[in-house]
Amino acid sequence: MFRARSVRMSDNPTAAVLVIGDEILSGRTQDTNTNYIAKLLGTLGIDLREARVVGDVEDEIVAALDALRRRYTYVFTTGGIGPTHDDITVDAVAKAFGVGVEYHPEALAMLTARYRPGEFNDTRKRMARVPRGAELVRNEASVAPGIRIGNVFVMAGVPTIMRAMMEDVAPKLARGAVVHSATVGARVGEGRIAEGLARIARAFPELSIGSYPFYRDDGYGTQLVARGRDAARVEEAAREIESLVRAEGAAPERI
Amino acid sequence: MFRARSVRMSDNPTAAVLVIGDEILSGRTQDTNTNYIAKLLGTLGIDLREARVVGDVEDEIVAALDALRRRYTYVFTTGGIGPTHDDITVDAVAKAFGVGVEYHPEALAMLTARYRPGEFNDTRKRMARVPRGAELVRNEASVAPGIRIGNVFVMAGVPTIMRAMMEDVAPKLARGAVVHSATVGARVGEGRIAEGLARIARAFPELSIGSYPFYRDDGYGTQLVARGRDAARVEEAAREIESLVRAEGAAPERI
Repeated sequence: MFRARSVRMSDNPTAAVLVIGDEILSGRTQDTNTNYIAKLLGTLGIDLREARVVGDVEDEIVAALDALRRRYTYVFTTGGIGPTHDDITVDAVAKAFGVGVEYHPEALAMLTARYRPGEFNDTRKRMARVPRGAELVRNEASVAPGIRIGNVFVMAGVPTIMRAMMEDVAPKLARGAVVHSATVGARVGEGRIAEGLARIARAFPELSIGSYPFYRDDGYGTQLVARGRDAARVEEAAREIESLVRAEGAAPERI
Repeated sequence: MFRARSVRMSDNPTAAVLVIGDEILSGRTQDTNTNYIAKLLGTLGIDLREARVVGDVEDEIVAALDALRRRYTYVFTTGGIGPTHDDITVDAVAKAFGVGVEYHPEALAMLTARYRPGEFNDTRKRMARVPRGAELVRNEASVAPGIRIGNVFVMAGVPTIMRAMMEDVAPKLARGAVVHSATVGARVGEGRIAEGLARIARAFPELSIGSYPFYRDDGYGTQLVARGRDAARVEEAAREIESLVRAEGAAPERI
């Protein structure tokens, strides 16, 4: 509890991810976007505090988005912005902000240029719909843009496109102090080092000290992770963790 | 919207997953437990409606658990039940249920038998702590048990152990009508078939009809998925989708 309270008491920007799509909840698709966004935000010093997955149900999207956008500096949504009938994210976002939906002239122009005459049909035009007052998020991977409205970034669910959209988004975000981390692998059970680890966590209240057990074919052990904004303190904690592991007769391994 | 409303209007049991752990939000670990649980619940006819990820912060865990357990038939949590100081799930679950924490006699006995005399220290004893009134979830992969209290199943974050726990849990769950699905791969852009697909979605209001675009080195296209409880209707919809793809001059492919 020490670590959680103190590491979170920073004034870093905060964020949530909202994954939208029945295909994630049915197990058909493994979400990897949250992990990608988490790592990217880490490099910017933005603390990802929460992630949610909801299905393609307007009320659910509206409720989740409303809860998250009021609470965190930024919200990143993925999924549901294509041209098909199950793409309802834009309408849900507009509803959450209490605004109407309109065609964005620049998006219309971009899409018109992309298709041959006659091919830019009404369903494709759907991809130019944005909540009133929204800006476009450009990307190199697809002509169809993402959307920014207020503190919410609305992105595609297809990972390559989402990543391209984050390249446009990232430079526009406020940054915080980057979190440094050090990981020590130890071939000892958590139970043997838990007490010593708790002592180290108390000695470094400004750091997050975590233990992540693993079970592999060649044996078990745990990865001990120190995280925090002061690189020197992180290193100091990692050395104490190494001493702790050695005191249990095992060889610590920096990972 | 047709699909979402109708498929969800069933009386199937519902569920949410609550993933607990800073390591997911920092991007250090890719969560795969949600996907595993989603697929397993699908085979039991239980509708996974929502998933959330929160960090190792007691208030966050309590708030999320409280929201989810009141709303869904079942909640499955993963992570935070080991012996180390960052394992705070048991206390948070107890708090959400407004009960104290106590040693479970059976869990103590199981753990005592596992360790040599003198090795069963206070930190290891932490793994026998449960919210008052909870039952144990056994598993073949680890001596430390999971926990059931009310409609909440508290499981390990390590995937192999979580899966073993779900084997103990699954037979105890209420079951619903299993969802059948058929997938048609099509090398056409979504924009070309969106209108026809919306027509099919309207003609099969009891099904969920989804479109999931892909972009690969050898070209792009979309996977069209029909899901629902009536296998014959799912098959019927899949054939209409195949006709739609053929009408666009492409060869549909069952996946």
